[in-house]
Amino acid sequence: MTDSQPAWPVPLRPELRSERPYGAPQLDVPILLNVNENPYQPSADVVSDIAAAVAAAATTLNRYPDRDFLALRADLAGYLRAESGVDLAAQNMWAANGSNEVMAHIFGAFGGPGRTALSFAPTYSMYAEYARDSHTDWMVGQRDGSFAIDPAVAARTITDVQPSIILLTSPNNPTGTALEPEVLRAVLAAAAKVRVDDAPAVVVVDEAYAEFRREGVPSALELLGDYPNLIVTRTMSKAFAAAGLRLGYAAADPRVVDCLQIVRLPYHLSAITQAAARAALRHQSELLSKVADLRAERDALVSWLRGRRLDGKPLTVADSDANFVYFGLFPDRHAVWQGLLDRGVLIREVGPDGWLRVSVGTPAETEAFKQALIEVAGI
Amino acid sequence: MTDSQPAWPVPLRPELRSERPYGAPQLDVPILLNVNENPYQPSADVVSDIAAAVAAAATTLNRYPDRDFLALRADLAGYLRAESGVDLAAQNMWAANGSNEVMAHIFGAFGGPGRTALSFAPTYSMYAEYARDSHTDWMVGQRDGSFAIDPAVAARTITDVQPSIILLTSPNNPTGTALEPEVLRAVLAAAAKVRVDDAPAVVVVDEAYAEFRREGVPSALELLGDYPNLIVTRTMSKAFAAAGLRLGYAAADPRVVDCLQIVRLPYHLSAITQAAARAALRHQSELLSKVADLRAERDALVSWLRGRRLDGKPLTVADSDANFVYFGLFPDRHAVWQGLLDRGVLIREVGPDGWLRVSVGTPAETEAFKQALIEVAGI
Repeated sequence: MTDSQPAWPVPLRPELRSERPYGAPQLDVPILLNVNENPYQPSADVVSDIAAAVAAAATTLNRYPDRDFLALRADLAGYLRAESGVDLAAQNMWAANGSNEVMAHIFGAFGGPGRTALSFAPTYSMYAEYARDSHTDWMVGQRDGSFAIDPAVAARTITDVQPSIILLTSPNNPTGTALEPEVLRAVLAAAAKVRVDDAPAVVVVDEAYAEFRREGVPSALELLGDYPNLIVTRTMSKAFAAAGLRLGYAAADPRVVDCLQIVRLPYHLSAITQAAARAALRHQSELLSKVADLRAERDALVSWLRGRRLDGKPLTVADSDANFVYFGLFPDRHAVWQGLLDRGVLIREVGPDGWLRVSVGTPAETEAFKQALIEVAGI
Repeated sequence: MTDSQPAWPVPLRPELRSERPYGAPQLDVPILLNVNENPYQPSADVVSDIAAAVAAAATTLNRYPDRDFLALRADLAGYLRAESGVDLAAQNMWAANGSNEVMAHIFGAFGGPGRTALSFAPTYSMYAEYARDSHTDWMVGQRDGSFAIDPAVAARTITDVQPSIILLTSPNNPTGTALEPEVLRAVLAAAAKVRVDDAPAVVVVDEAYAEFRREGVPSALELLGDYPNLIVTRTMSKAFAAAGLRLGYAAADPRVVDCLQIVRLPYHLSAITQAAARAALRHQSELLSKVADLRAERDALVSWLRGRRLDGKPLTVADSDANFVYFGLFPDRHAVWQGLLDRGVLIREVGPDGWLRVSVGTPAETEAFKQALIEVAGI
């Protein structure tokens, strides 16, 4: 203790003193293709059903919400059962305010001091922040030139690192590429042999964009019955066009859900969030029909970009199973990003140098992006 | 690494393996006086304004919410300015899904491994959980027999422990007692001399129930201008009769808010939560008029309990500045709690042995509680 003047007015942790809050710039730009939002607004039907559901919930807003939100969990299970054919019930499901809060629960239960989380770069930049905020060590293996993970390298890395959490992303962000099934099986086999406090590692497959995957690309949901240490996360932000709702969820063995429940803050999901999410889920066929449109738009955008040439060479475009496309390589990607922004089109400058990510918008938005890109990059 | 069968299917942290999820039992009982909810449902006007605000927000639900929720922060600042006369603006305000998430941000920024949080028991039982989940060491000093904190003892404890976070609660939960101003000043003086990574301690005054305080009892808000390391937390759960909304908030120096922003999950407050909270705030005069009724009901209940005798001695009843009353001492408080439950009245068995906590309900609910207590405890 000392009476001298402190260097800081408050005891922010030293490792955070140079940090900035996470988030893409929220700029006021006509065409927003930077954060992989679904470009289609909810219909008047969806809006009025959400409002009615919230009104009903608000009549007892003086009471705490259902802490275990079993009705919402049953609805989410029903949705995934219909999508995947996998037998899931309410006790397999977990949810929170965005899949980032689901991840925070996963890191709270299975990470923490003295433990390590492992992923494969380039991947979603928030993962490192979940590790930082939970005091979990953070390790990244590398993907190959086409953003794939080599199964043997992955297995060896897992054996060496002995992580308690392994994070895979399918489709991956920012690359858009899906996880090969043999990679997931190799990772699960290696994870089963890890021993952290006498338990194997959990394998988290982040399927935030899974509904956009191409025909024939599997979901990790299909393996849930075989692996009690597998967690598949999803979100209503993208396919359900509900980024503003903040409803992320996970499917897993009920014993995993029990663990997440220990570290959640009580009543973390409000009564109105529960009601609004259930209302949106009732409109799943309407909301998902837009997903089909976006998949077609995405495929067309990938083809178009692959047909353009930069300095005589075709653009490089990653396969996409998501609602965004990762493309390059630009000698000065920042100049391209800025040129697009100057023309009212905001995309994302993220991941390895030379690459840019664009969200799939409406046909008109895509057209504006294409025209701007032709002007800016001279493709 | 070993191939032997693991003891656990997933690597739940060892210190969590015997833990249960936090939360009072959610029982289906006619009279709920156990979690300090406001017994008055929102009026039809409030409900329809919330629904309309959510409907408006839902038209762009496909977009992420305003990550910095500046409009809501300005509204919250306006509310506190009106209540306290203290000059507060949006940049003084922070909010999250319940004040427990605000606390998680405080522990994330200012707690963590190698740091200690300090409070004074008996107090709110969730605090220890915030410490556990953020890997912060947890220390408690003791309150005296009337649940007051001795200023000299508090100062000495702070000097000895060198905590980075000091948690005070006014009115305290479960006791209902307000913090004496001289205690807060002694704590702030001692906190200013703490040095944790070359910074003083933050002092958090949890004022979840502040709107219920008796005439003349001050709020810590009045000291905000003098102490950059003071954080005052509030909630819309109680006075605003909106426990189901999950909107907790804090007022502090903007530099504190900047710190909290670093550890928040991006987009943690949904667009519908922001819209619904702003709608409820527009009805503050209506909602707060019920607070006046509840304060009168609370004072009457304290008087009534003080007039009852158990085994020839008057009941002991703590002064209450909250919407609940802490009373005892019962040789077998669990039997009293159970007897009330058997009669359809759920209260809370919490804190030091012999004491029970009852929330202030409607006059009819209070009457049912009194009758049941007379029957069960023979008072």
